[in-house]
Amino acid sequence: MMNFLAINILNSGVQLSMVCAAIGLAFAFFLIAAVTRAPSGNERMREISAAVQEGARAYLNRQVKTISVIAVVIFILLFVFKDHPTAIGFVIGAFCSLAAGFIGMRVAVLANVRTAQAASVARLNALRVAFNGGSVTGLLVVGLALLSVSIFYTIAANLIGSDAAIRSLVGLALGGSLISVFARLGGGIYTKAADVGADLVGKIEKGLEEDDPRNPAVIADNVGDNVGDCAGMAADVFETYAVSLVGAILAGLLTIGGNPATIVYPFLLGGISVVGAILGILFVNVARGKPTAVLMGAVMTNALVSAILFWPATRNLFPGGVSIDGVLRSPAELYFASLVGLIMTPVIVALTNYYTSSHFRPVQKIAHASETGHATNIIAGLAAGEHATALPVLFIGAAILITFHFAGLYGIAIAVMSMLSMAGVIISLDSFGPITDNAGGVAVMANLPKEVRVVTDELDAVGNTMKAVTKGYAIASAGLAALVLFGSYVEELRGHITSRGEVFSFQFSLSDPKVIIGLFIGGLLPFVFTAFSMDAVGKAAGAVVREVRRQLQVKPGILTGQERPEYGTCVDIVTKAALREMIVPALLPLVAVIVVASIPSLGAVVLGGLLVGTIVTGLFIAIAMTSGGAAWDNAKKFIEEGNLGGKGSFAHAAAVTGDTVGDPYKDTAGPAINPMIKVVNILAILIIPIFF
Amino acid sequence: MMNFLAINILNSGVQLSMVCAAIGLAFAFFLIAAVTRAPSGNERMREISAAVQEGARAYLNRQVKTISVIAVVIFILLFVFKDHPTAIGFVIGAFCSLAAGFIGMRVAVLANVRTAQAASVARLNALRVAFNGGSVTGLLVVGLALLSVSIFYTIAANLIGSDAAIRSLVGLALGGSLISVFARLGGGIYTKAADVGADLVGKIEKGLEEDDPRNPAVIADNVGDNVGDCAGMAADVFETYAVSLVGAILAGLLTIGGNPATIVYPFLLGGISVVGAILGILFVNVARGKPTAVLMGAVMTNALVSAILFWPATRNLFPGGVSIDGVLRSPAELYFASLVGLIMTPVIVALTNYYTSSHFRPVQKIAHASETGHATNIIAGLAAGEHATALPVLFIGAAILITFHFAGLYGIAIAVMSMLSMAGVIISLDSFGPITDNAGGVAVMANLPKEVRVVTDELDAVGNTMKAVTKGYAIASAGLAALVLFGSYVEELRGHITSRGEVFSFQFSLSDPKVIIGLFIGGLLPFVFTAFSMDAVGKAAGAVVREVRRQLQVKPGILTGQERPEYGTCVDIVTKAALREMIVPALLPLVAVIVVASIPSLGAVVLGGLLVGTIVTGLFIAIAMTSGGAAWDNAKKFIEEGNLGGKGSFAHAAAVTGDTVGDPYKDTAGPAINPMIKVVNILAILIIPIFF
Repeated sequence: MMNFLAINILNSGVQLSMVCAAIGLAFAFFLIAAVTRAPSGNERMREISAAVQEGARAYLNRQVKTISVIAVVIFILLFVFKDHPTAIGFVIGAFCSLAAGFIGMRVAVLANVRTAQAASVARLNALRVAFNGGSVTGLLVVGLALLSVSIFYTIAANLIGSDAAIRSLVGLALGGSLISVFARLGGGIYTKAADVGADLVGKIEKGLEEDDPRNPAVIADNVGDNVGDCAGMAADVFETYAVSLVGAILAGLLTIGGNPATIVYPFLLGGISVVGAILGILFVNVARGKPTAVLMGAVMTNALVSAILFWPATRNLFPGGVSIDGVLRSPAELYFASLVGLIMTPVIVALTNYYTSSHFRPVQKIAHASETGHATNIIAGLAAGEHATALPVLFIGAAILITFHFAGLYGIAIAVMSMLSMAGVIISLDSFGPITDNAGGVAVMANLPKEVRVVTDELDAVGNTMKAVTKGYAIASAGLAALVLFGSYVEELRGHITSRGEVFSFQFSLSDPKVIIGLFIGGLLPFVFTAFSMDAVGKAAGAVVREVRRQLQVKPGILTGQERPEYGTCVDIVTKAALREMIVPALLPLVAVIVVASIPSLGAVVLGGLLVGTIVTGLFIAIAMTSGGAAWDNAKKFIEEGNLGGKGSFAHAAAVTGDTVGDPYKDTAGPAINPMIKVVNILAILIIPIFF
Repeated sequence: MMNFLAINILNSGVQLSMVCAAIGLAFAFFLIAAVTRAPSGNERMREISAAVQEGARAYLNRQVKTISVIAVVIFILLFVFKDHPTAIGFVIGAFCSLAAGFIGMRVAVLANVRTAQAASVARLNALRVAFNGGSVTGLLVVGLALLSVSIFYTIAANLIGSDAAIRSLVGLALGGSLISVFARLGGGIYTKAADVGADLVGKIEKGLEEDDPRNPAVIADNVGDNVGDCAGMAADVFETYAVSLVGAILAGLLTIGGNPATIVYPFLLGGISVVGAILGILFVNVARGKPTAVLMGAVMTNALVSAILFWPATRNLFPGGVSIDGVLRSPAELYFASLVGLIMTPVIVALTNYYTSSHFRPVQKIAHASETGHATNIIAGLAAGEHATALPVLFIGAAILITFHFAGLYGIAIAVMSMLSMAGVIISLDSFGPITDNAGGVAVMANLPKEVRVVTDELDAVGNTMKAVTKGYAIASAGLAALVLFGSYVEELRGHITSRGEVFSFQFSLSDPKVIIGLFIGGLLPFVFTAFSMDAVGKAAGAVVREVRRQLQVKPGILTGQERPEYGTCVDIVTKAALREMIVPALLPLVAVIVVASIPSLGAVVLGGLLVGTIVTGLFIAIAMTSGGAAWDNAKKFIEEGNLGGKGSFAHAAAVTGDTVGDPYKDTAGPAINPMIKVVNILAILIIPIFF
């Protein structure tokens, strides 16, 4: 039971985070105004942008319809077998995740044409327009996540009490995650099928440049950037943020009990970092220098502001410390846990940068391997991806050990929330890539002078590394968040009384073969999940290749510029393929959890193993795929910069093959693991009272 | 304390297995005589064979020297920090593993030239000569393993008692495993660097056929088949067999205590299956029909004979059952556990066959993906490898659950030993591939008529699938064996009293962050291990490519047949590269275990997580790599049979790239995981009294 003072702390703390979220949203609208004010280029540019936007909107609408059917089914199941607040939470989470996707797409289309225009003035202008566009997405998505969770919690706590409200937040997290799996997969299959298909015939067979309007798949490729890299990523971030927040609140409830300060704390960390993100964004708008340095400055600004402000917040919230699992933890210990999260962000960013930037050995090794052919390029890239798992995983392990030492499971949860609190500025970096990529597309298709393309190409290369490092950040935080959820699963089971009146008392010991089998089944999920995703891209890309070849054969005038390609058929092929192929892998984790949970008398133990197994192999595969893919991409760019023979050389052809293989690795299969491992863990928590 | 009767059972049981092993060896010598009697072809064929043999022997001698240095260091460490019997066991295990490699190489060279000669008479003759050659290796290696373990145990038990003797057998297992890691890596890097290097220039750039004597890397390639596929594989099997036997004996000691029947039982299963293997080999020598059907008949014969004979052996050994962990287990329950092992063999063989044979969808999908280019071929192959993990892992999980249900950890151990008892006949299948491959090489280089090459090509294709399925068998059994070792680690720790006088009481619970970190570090090992192996092949292959290109440029007469290539330089490049590059990955698991074990107060728990983490990701990566690689290979063969455009088509070029990527996957990195996960687990058991 909470006393009056406790409720007061709770309300005022949550309200403060709402205020911060509102400030973030206000600043996002200010940025929208600023971006919109930027000149949007000539008629032809706006026309191309509109065509791409139309394709993207059409696809997202169809994706919403497909996903809605599944969401409605799950809503009904939750409404009947679980409880009404959870079901309502699910709908809110699902809706916000979809909304985040639309926001990401809208903003990207707004920003790309203006970045192309700004690139014709100066590099710095283009950098700022693209970054500000990305920042709009970042702030809107983070604000949306913070507001939806805090408002839902506040209302639900008033109606059904704080504990029940927290448990129904798990429904909101599931809604966000599940939609995000679909959005990541659908968008990822779309963008990479179009990209691979366009490249295989256009670049490799016909020697066309990227974004050449004679390539019949070029519009599909540009639509793909918007629905995959922008919309898919935004949905993913909403999910990651919301789940980390809910996970931290849940860990607070389960390991500490009714102490309202532990519930407020994650909200506060999120709110404070919105202020840090705004200052980071302002930094980019005043700083000058190399693009990478300027962008990294934003991250450091945010980290610094948060590190400073987290301390008074922690001290005021826990003046006498807090008792966790019977041990009194000082405010300093909690603060240190949050600091680990802040430090992890630049650490993971720096490590991923090492593995994926063309300035370092791993990427250069792939480039050199290209000199001896396609196969040695692929072998080197696969090895590079595997190598790239080593340091991040060791640091994640260290973070777990340290934060657990400070404050148990709640300490890990706080570190994750603290890490995720920087999502606003991280997303600004992440969106930067697709926006400049699209700007380049607009520039080529609108026949802008070559200097413009040079600027957008340079920024695109920076954006590539940013995309890679933010993916490292996303998967590291996802792994940690999923572990917090697993911890919550164990805690929730500990006191649970089964329908037969027994009290669960599990150890999830590795010497229990049921746990080992769970680890095997869970470990299998990321393998099969990514296998399906890769298959989907390969299949859809193959269809695009055949269509492009067909068009070029039927209308030979396309290549000479005398005939216009039919862009629509490629868009149509990819749309259908993406919607069809996303279903099986997206449902796979749901089905696996339900099937395992239904094994009589073994379910709960095997499921525990499954959750951890999915996290372990998922973490490795996701890092190997995203880093490996980015390394292939940058090895190709390294050669295109004139090294090892440059464009058109034997090495370049091999590097293009590597880049193409890396496409589904880094933009479809790899990042989709991120929400997948969380769906599995959230669902497990939700179904405890239904199955056990 | 054992009574007189018990000692009697023990002695007579172990002696019976020695007799069976001796029969196996005698039959092997009979087969050697039979193979030697077969005509060895003309002068030129013998000359080529001798050249290849010389290169292989020279490499193996240098490999022995390199490995010996490391083995001596470890022997001294064990002698000083552990105990003398364990150190002596280590030397015996290491020596036998090396000897097995030499046997594998010698027999292969004996058989390949005779297979080539037999192929000029009839397909059936060639099939029998190649299979009998493989059978010699199989029987010699199994006999060597069974004899070395039983003799060492018998002598040691007389000197230091049964319990201490069993513990020093762990040293023998470590010796076998460690040398096997080196042999697998060194041989694997050698064979695939030569193969990839020869293919990249010879096949892809210059359009030469396989084994064309104008290719300067052709002798290195043929030497590679002998030192990698034959010698490396033989060392690996010795290790797998010896470790499974030792693991089962150890599990018997740790979970049941001093009951001698539980120690004899694994020996007996091994001995009985030698008889089964001989009957299986005889079956191939009398049966007629499709090569695949005849070879599978041998497996079924062995399984059937063992299934029949295991029952009386079990009933006589455990007339009143046996008490395991306080539960009385009937003879039928133990027999069922052994039956699961026998059934697992054909199950895993059939599953792997589905994923890797060109008659089924997975391989055909890769072939079709080749029509749209190199990249889609690679994407499809990577996905196929991942898919191929699903069913084997689920069946392995089921086997664990069932056998644990029958007889706890000892039940799993019995199933593994029963599975491994069929190694004699399985190796006969496995060696079949490289022998026919080499026979083809001899046929081409000796200018034998084209019909001969047609026969060897057909048998080589069968051999490819056999190699793939036996790798599935090897990794499935390795995963299970490693789990038994992990179980022994836990049991051994349970009663262990630390140097500080504390008694260990661990749960290895998944909610302990130390266990999670262990899972992460362990999960990392196979990733980094395979990354280094792939790198090594890529690097060495690149060097071969540059050398071959250099020779063809300096001596343009090579391609027209007017100048003789310098085979020696390629052999030299690959030899040095293999010996240099195998060191780091081979030492990686040792270093990881030692470093983790030395973490003060956390070591034992983190190490427990590490052991399981390595098994989980190792199992998946090994299956994905070996099956994926074989699928790529057979997709290429499917196209070469005339499908989808056949040889020389666009699809074929893409398929060759996939095959080349698959080479280090299936023959270097993938199979080396097999001994690696066992080295980790054995070492952990050994160091308990040193570190904790």
